[in-house]
Amino acid sequence: MTNTNTLYQHGTLALLVPGLLDGTITMQDLLKHGDTGIGTGEGLDGELIILDGIPYQVDSDGNVNIVKDDFTLPFANSHFANYQSLTNVENISQKELDKKIISMTSSNTFFSIKVHGTFTNIKTRAVPKSHKPYATLGKTAEDQSVFSKDSVEGTLLSYYAPQIFDGAAVGGFHHHFLSDKHDFGGHVLSFTVESGKVEIQQFDTLEQHLPTKNTDYMNYDFSDWDILGEIHKAES
Amino acid sequence: MTNTNTLYQHGTLALLVPGLLDGTITMQDLLKHGDTGIGTGEGLDGELIILDGIPYQVDSDGNVNIVKDDFTLPFANSHFANYQSLTNVENISQKELDKKIISMTSSNTFFSIKVHGTFTNIKTRAVPKSHKPYATLGKTAEDQSVFSKDSVEGTLLSYYAPQIFDGAAVGGFHHHFLSDKHDFGGHVLSFTVESGKVEIQQFDTLEQHLPTKNTDYMNYDFSDWDILGEIHKAES
Repeated sequence: MTNTNTLYQHGTLALLVPGLLDGTITMQDLLKHGDTGIGTGEGLDGELIILDGIPYQVDSDGNVNIVKDDFTLPFANSHFANYQSLTNVENISQKELDKKIISMTSSNTFFSIKVHGTFTNIKTRAVPKSHKPYATLGKTAEDQSVFSKDSVEGTLLSYYAPQIFDGAAVGGFHHHFLSDKHDFGGHVLSFTVESGKVEIQQFDTLEQHLPTKNTDYMNYDFSDWDILGEIHKAES
Repeated sequence: MTNTNTLYQHGTLALLVPGLLDGTITMQDLLKHGDTGIGTGEGLDGELIILDGIPYQVDSDGNVNIVKDDFTLPFANSHFANYQSLTNVENISQKELDKKIISMTSSNTFFSIKVHGTFTNIKTRAVPKSHKPYATLGKTAEDQSVFSKDSVEGTLLSYYAPQIFDGAAVGGFHHHFLSDKHDFGGHVLSFTVESGKVEIQQFDTLEQHLPTKNTDYMNYDFSDWDILGEIHKAES
């Protein structure tokens, strides 16, 4: 029996900041913890979204690829889907949607949101893969590709983390997107939902796995960094 | 087969700050996740330490009691013991010990430390149980009882959390103590180790469980609080 109350996380958002970008979990292992998820590849190689057990990568050219079992990631989330209907929305901005969802549920636990519908003015981003020695998150983000669509049907997959977990996870919402035609997606910067069906899945457990076999991670001195400041710059 | 790579945590340190002190896990359930651990009772009812599967409570009178299965806790850690020898120490202060341990292992993952030996100038504290409506952590801490011993043999049980998890857990070290005679212990404020054997157990996973069935927790608005500031005041 799969556990639908647990959100699995490999790595932390914090480790991306100084560029600890080795892939430390394989897609095969990540999929053992869920059929739904998000992440990024080694060296920030694209933005990943897992739907119904299939791992899609949006690369820095905007192409959508299905990645193989041995694809590796420095940071990822996954869980076994068991969404409940929350609400239907029309002509709602990202900000208003986030607010509406928070008003309908608790902001003190982890949850996932799935919105299927028509999205307008949607902007996403992906960054080109970097190689060792990896650049910092701030440096890499400068080279990001931004993609946009006036109107597209697809799925928004989001994770919400309580503020006290900011830095380990993304405090608040973290949105990824994939179009129904599998020709557009990535880490979401902004959007409007023209019409969509919003589903929610609440978790009571975060299973936080750390890359303890990666010596670069284990030996790194994070104390010189304003980790939260860097994250908020790069993830906004 | 028990999992000795996982540290289980129920609740967060943050929820203690505004006084969300309902017991939301039973000792029976906590012991399913480990034979070793620490915690506090409902209403901050004493300081708990679990050794070899036996849960001891140091109450605000300084008595050491074994608690029953139905004893409840708002915040606790537990894990299955599999310690490895790290070092032997003599005449070392708490600060020097913390520093020595960090120099011998990674500060980027969770681990537990167990020190058995003779402790001098050890100070511990426990607070009296409060009842609903609970006081805040700061208010309750004002009423704490402080206990001290010039010299005592016993076990120091500590958990270490990477700084990025500060607030969810105690960033850095969190020390509890129990004397071999079971007549002294609690949350540790300061100590010197006269001579002791230091063991370590490193984890690769934090299983963070949140009290999602507790409506007071789920509905609480944490945004008015300087959670980290309050924690650092109360836990120092």
